[in-house]
Amino acid sequence: MNLKQVIEGTDTRAGRAFDLSIQVLIVLSLVAFSVETLPDLPKSAQIFLRWVETVSVVIFTVEYLLRLIVAKRKLRFATSFFGVIDLLAILPFYLSLGIDLRSVRAFRLLRLFRILKLARYSQAVRRFHRALLIAREELVLFGVVSSILLYLSAVGIYFFEREAQPEAFASVFHSLWWSVATLTTVGYGDVYPVTTGGRCFTFAVLLVGLGVVSVPAGLVASALSKAREQENP
Amino acid sequence: MNLKQVIEGTDTRAGRAFDLSIQVLIVLSLVAFSVETLPDLPKSAQIFLRWVETVSVVIFTVEYLLRLIVAKRKLRFATSFFGVIDLLAILPFYLSLGIDLRSVRAFRLLRLFRILKLARYSQAVRRFHRALLIAREELVLFGVVSSILLYLSAVGIYFFEREAQPEAFASVFHSLWWSVATLTTVGYGDVYPVTTGGRCFTFAVLLVGLGVVSVPAGLVASALSKAREQENP
Amino acid sequence: MNLKQVIEGTDTRAGRAFDLSIQVLIVLSLVAFSVETLPDLPKSAQIFLRWVETVSVVIFTVEYLLRLIVAKRKLRFATSFFGVIDLLAILPFYLSLGIDLRSVRAFRLLRLFRILKLARYSQAVRRFHRALLIAREELVLFGVVSSILLYLSAVGIYFFEREAQPEAFASVFHSLWWSVATLTTVGYGDVYPVTTGGRCFTFAVLLVGLGVVSVPAGLVASALSKAREQENP
Amino acid sequence: MNLKQVIEGTDTRAGRAFDLSIQVLIVLSLVAFSVETLPDLPKSAQIFLRWVETVSVVIFTVEYLLRLIVAKRKLRFATSFFGVIDLLAILPFYLSLGIDLRSVRAFRLLRLFRILKLARYSQAVRRFHRALLIAREELVLFGVVSSILLYLSAVGIYFFEREAQPEAFASVFHSLWWSVATLTTVGYGDVYPVTTGGRCFTFAVLLVGLGVVSVPAGLVASALSKAREQENP
Repeated sequence: MNLKQVIEGTDTRAGRAFDLSIQVLIVLSLVAFSVETLPDLPKSAQIFLRWVETVSVVIFTVEYLLRLIVAKRKLRFATSFFGVIDLLAILPFYLSLGIDLRSVRAFRLLRLFRILKLARYSQAVRRFHRALLIAREELVLFGVVSSILLYLSAVGIYFFEREAQPEAFASVFHSLWWSVATLTTVGYGDVYPVTTGGRCFTFAVLLVGLGVVSVPAGLVASALSKAREQENP
Repeated sequence: MNLKQVIEGTDTRAGRAFDLSIQVLIVLSLVAFSVETLPDLPKSAQIFLRWVETVSVVIFTVEYLLRLIVAKRKLRFATSFFGVIDLLAILPFYLSLGIDLRSVRAFRLLRLFRILKLARYSQAVRRFHRALLIAREELVLFGVVSSILLYLSAVGIYFFEREAQPEAFASVFHSLWWSVATLTTVGYGDVYPVTTGGRCFTFAVLLVGLGVVSVPAGLVASALSKAREQENP
Repeated sequence: MNLKQVIEGTDTRAGRAFDLSIQVLIVLSLVAFSVETLPDLPKSAQIFLRWVETVSVVIFTVEYLLRLIVAKRKLRFATSFFGVIDLLAILPFYLSLGIDLRSVRAFRLLRLFRILKLARYSQAVRRFHRALLIAREELVLFGVVSSILLYLSAVGIYFFEREAQPEAFASVFHSLWWSVATLTTVGYGDVYPVTTGGRCFTFAVLLVGLGVVSVPAGLVASALSKAREQENP
Repeated sequence: MNLKQVIEGTDTRAGRAFDLSIQVLIVLSLVAFSVETLPDLPKSAQIFLRWVETVSVVIFTVEYLLRLIVAKRKLRFATSFFGVIDLLAILPFYLSLGIDLRSVRAFRLLRLFRILKLARYSQAVRRFHRALLIAREELVLFGVVSSILLYLSAVGIYFFEREAQPEAFASVFHSLWWSVATLTTVGYGDVYPVTTGGRCFTFAVLLVGLGVVSVPAGLVASALSKAREQENP
């Protein structure tokens, strides 16, 4: 019973220490993973990083098994969101050890699910979750309206620019990339209208679009302040 | 009378199924339209897409006629916003069949009004509509203020940059394109000031402009939360 | 007394008609001014635009004199904000007629003050003015904080990037242009950090800066909703 | 005791005059520092700027010593935030005089801490400070969520784009630069996805990311209006 308190609870000192050390290890393994992607890494560093990887996977495996042991309903844990992520965070390592094919390496991307484990330990995520529930309907509505707007603006700019720039605006799908970069105001500058018609259309789209695409952020902010008020009435 | 419930209502199971299938068909025909714009499409795909187009137009035509039949005031439906859109969504197909001229193809853009039909079926649009009514005055005011600001900044940058960049800032209209790209913070990077005066002017314009152009999004967000409060007092 | 009602008031039908026609004429003269800046304009168009200019200036002069005549305190009107703008909107025309030097043409920029006359007739501007008064202190504070942030980030990036890009980041003033383009998220793409240190610094600046530079828009939005509540308590 | 009122207080006319003149001197010395970085500065200007520098440092030194003298708890002032900044603002000058090495010149960056002294004199900063305390938890939470999002999007784009653009997306760290420029919507345009997969991923990241990265500004705005309400209940 004491083991269960340490692993699942955050009330005891041992429980907090366990959670904190797991979190530190997650960040460490992510840093190691990122460093591993650097080009022209010396051989010695590669070997060291592989050791970090092996050790952290072993610890995560022990942690996963411990969680499975102390869980009351084992199947329910194994099929829960964090149960699956915990497994996905360690499974690719064993798979690549067993089969050792280059193509399997792509599965290592799944190792990144580990970072989502950070969310489990943070109590503060709950309020954010409640705020999302409060503003859910509006967020879905604005998701739909934004999608329609993105599509319509992509079709519009396609008809305006396809003749002047047949490469950049080759199809509606190519134009969608312009829509995304423009309506989010990122504006990389790799595609932009050059015709007078296309520029006037961009003007009209931005007038309407900015009021639609940037509203959700305001909705989340107001929902968060409401969620805080519900806590301290 | 039962037919009317299926087509216009969403209370019965048959009514919801009808609405949902029409919505799916709209999305499908839009995807087909987008794929059709892809360059270097094989002949077989073109034939398949034309079939999708024909079938969906036939179904939309039947739907339009059914709506016309069950409508109490037939003329009022035909001249209503969605009545016109429903007609515009199917008319270009018949026109291009009948006349078969390349220039008429431009009218196919009107087929895109179909996507606006998505709005009809969505109950959630109403709240957004009410929020727009609440913030209408402020939105109009900020539209006017933003327009004045856009114009004045275009004229200003024209006088600062026309000598250094006679191509990009050839006239006030060319400068307006810079104003739009800058004040919406899109910043494509195709036109930007290079003179010291132009850069200081840009700085001053952005200081004032960001507070004006990005306010409407906040207005819509606060109006939406007010509209929600009116629902659940 | 009747003339005073027509010119200064908006209660009578004649007063509204007078205001509206002046507004239309302001927009027309601004369009004419913009068209005039187009390169390669045919001679006939230039002559026509000069006629539009002359006629509108004559009407604006008559309007200015009428306002001066009906004003109770003539000196107070002549030195008021809109009195000065009204004068500045017509004065450059007579100056360029009298002296006819190319250098005086620069004063024609002042003709643009005409657009500010639009503000006089709009009743809706008052609420915006009140909202600015409500949020004045915060806006000034954020103006100061943003200025400090802009300066500090310009100095920082100057030390990080001056060796790698001696052209783009030649001095603190050159770096300020980067600060403005970055912290307003315009991001033209003409100057950007290339060193690892400069990029990490940009990351840190953006983390702090976005929360500072984009706050004023939210302040104005909330002040506007407060100003509306004060109207309808 | 009168000296203490002049230096630390802002109630008397002499106290306000002292504070204001120090602020003006800070801005002047910052302008001088910025002008000094201009390339191709004539010799005479350099000599003049060195004089401005010397004089202002002498005055700041006198000010620092006076503050130290009038402070009740001298050690507490010397180790306080502004005590350290006051010292850092003048120390590099004496260090560079004493040792006169080129490498020590880098410490001159510390002279910029002087600008933070501006904050001391502004009463309005307090409300901003209180607003930050109100929204502290949410700001920390969004900092963490934004960091996770930045990291995950960097890893994602790395796997999508590393083959197509091995230079720009050489490692996860290189991709992080893209993440920062994209999620803050700066979008310089030096790195952007070119593959279809990378563009779809960018679309997905922006949909989620804009709602996360731009929320803190709204949080600060609402916290500021709360802080104002607490002042005038």
